[in-house]
Amino acid sequence: MAYSREALIEAVSSQMPDKRWQHTLGVMESSVKLAERYGADPARAETAAILHDVAKYWPVERMKEIMEQNGLPSELLSYDKQLWHAEVGAFVAERDYEITDAEVLGAIRYHTSGREGMSLLEKIVCLADYIEPGRDFPGVDEIRRLSKISLEEGLIAGFDSTISLLLQKRRIVFPLTVLARNDLVRILEDK
Amino acid sequence: MAYSREALIEAVSSQMPDKRWQHTLGVMESSVKLAERYGADPARAETAAILHDVAKYWPVERMKEIMEQNGLPSELLSYDKQLWHAEVGAFVAERDYEITDAEVLGAIRYHTSGREGMSLLEKIVCLADYIEPGRDFPGVDEIRRLSKISLEEGLIAGFDSTISLLLQKRRIVFPLTVLARNDLVRILEDK
Repeated sequence: MAYSREALIEAVSSQMPDKRWQHTLGVMESSVKLAERYGADPARAETAAILHDVAKYWPVERMKEIMEQNGLPSELLSYDKQLWHAEVGAFVAERDYEITDAEVLGAIRYHTSGREGMSLLEKIVCLADYIEPGRDFPGVDEIRRLSKISLEEGLIAGFDSTISLLLQKRRIVFPLTVLARNDLVRILEDK
Repeated sequence: MAYSREALIEAVSSQMPDKRWQHTLGVMESSVKLAERYGADPARAETAAILHDVAKYWPVERMKEIMEQNGLPSELLSYDKQLWHAEVGAFVAERDYEITDAEVLGAIRYHTSGREGMSLLEKIVCLADYIEPGRDFPGVDEIRRLSKISLEEGLIAGFDSTISLLLQKRRIVFPLTVLARNDLVRILEDK
């Protein structure tokens, strides 16, 4: 990696409001803890966490342009803009911050939606994003409790809370999140 | 249609316990009412309703055999068996009861799962299956209330209740149902 940890932190933190950077610090902390607990490399988990929201405050038009010009999944454009920053973030992490580690890129790309067949690092960053210390939403303490028992249990609870909230708010449910959640349920059933 | 209404009722009712036939009578009644309210042909709605659960009490192995031998969507086999009877029912309606009306067959095929781009008759039978007078589950009265205002509102509430229940019970959520629900939400947003 060409960027040092400090240079990466400097570059990413300057692209978002302080409040969102505080959230990123929380995701870094939780990702490292989960990596240590579940046997992943804490440094790679932290790198993905630093970058996971790099594009979160980019203008929608800039995200759209990147997606269209670089062949990122066009399906995403018909779904909530909240999902775009993850895909764009992974693209930017590779192009601008010279991240070549496919698992780190995957952890950025799928940190919001999840997907079927999530890697260990993808699970860690996605779950850290739900439970970082700054998060406060109904059910977060139960997700935190489960995250100490099982990555999959924690993530199922996280995805279930997201899907339930979207139903309640009559917002579109991203199908990939349902597939991710079904996949984790099956993994636990087969254990 | 080669079968008279009475012959169809006779043939289908003999394939299920009386309790389930009472449910079918309820779906017939609700389908006819919804068809009258929303401008569909009550006779076609009733035919689909008569047949919608024709395979519900068939042995799982018999359903599986039909699906495998006739090229029905193999994806279904990895999902809940509760979903199979709808697909098998549509197949049987065509093969054994000489139903050729594609909309009637679609209303049987998608009465449990829903799908994107549901036809008027598909919406009617699917919603009737939620609200028929014998149904008693949390939220059914709200679905009944909404079904008097809008087919789509009623169905969204029905699908939401199904998805929520599956999350709560940690059961697999059939992706097509989420797509059906998203599609209806978009239709109402665009109105």
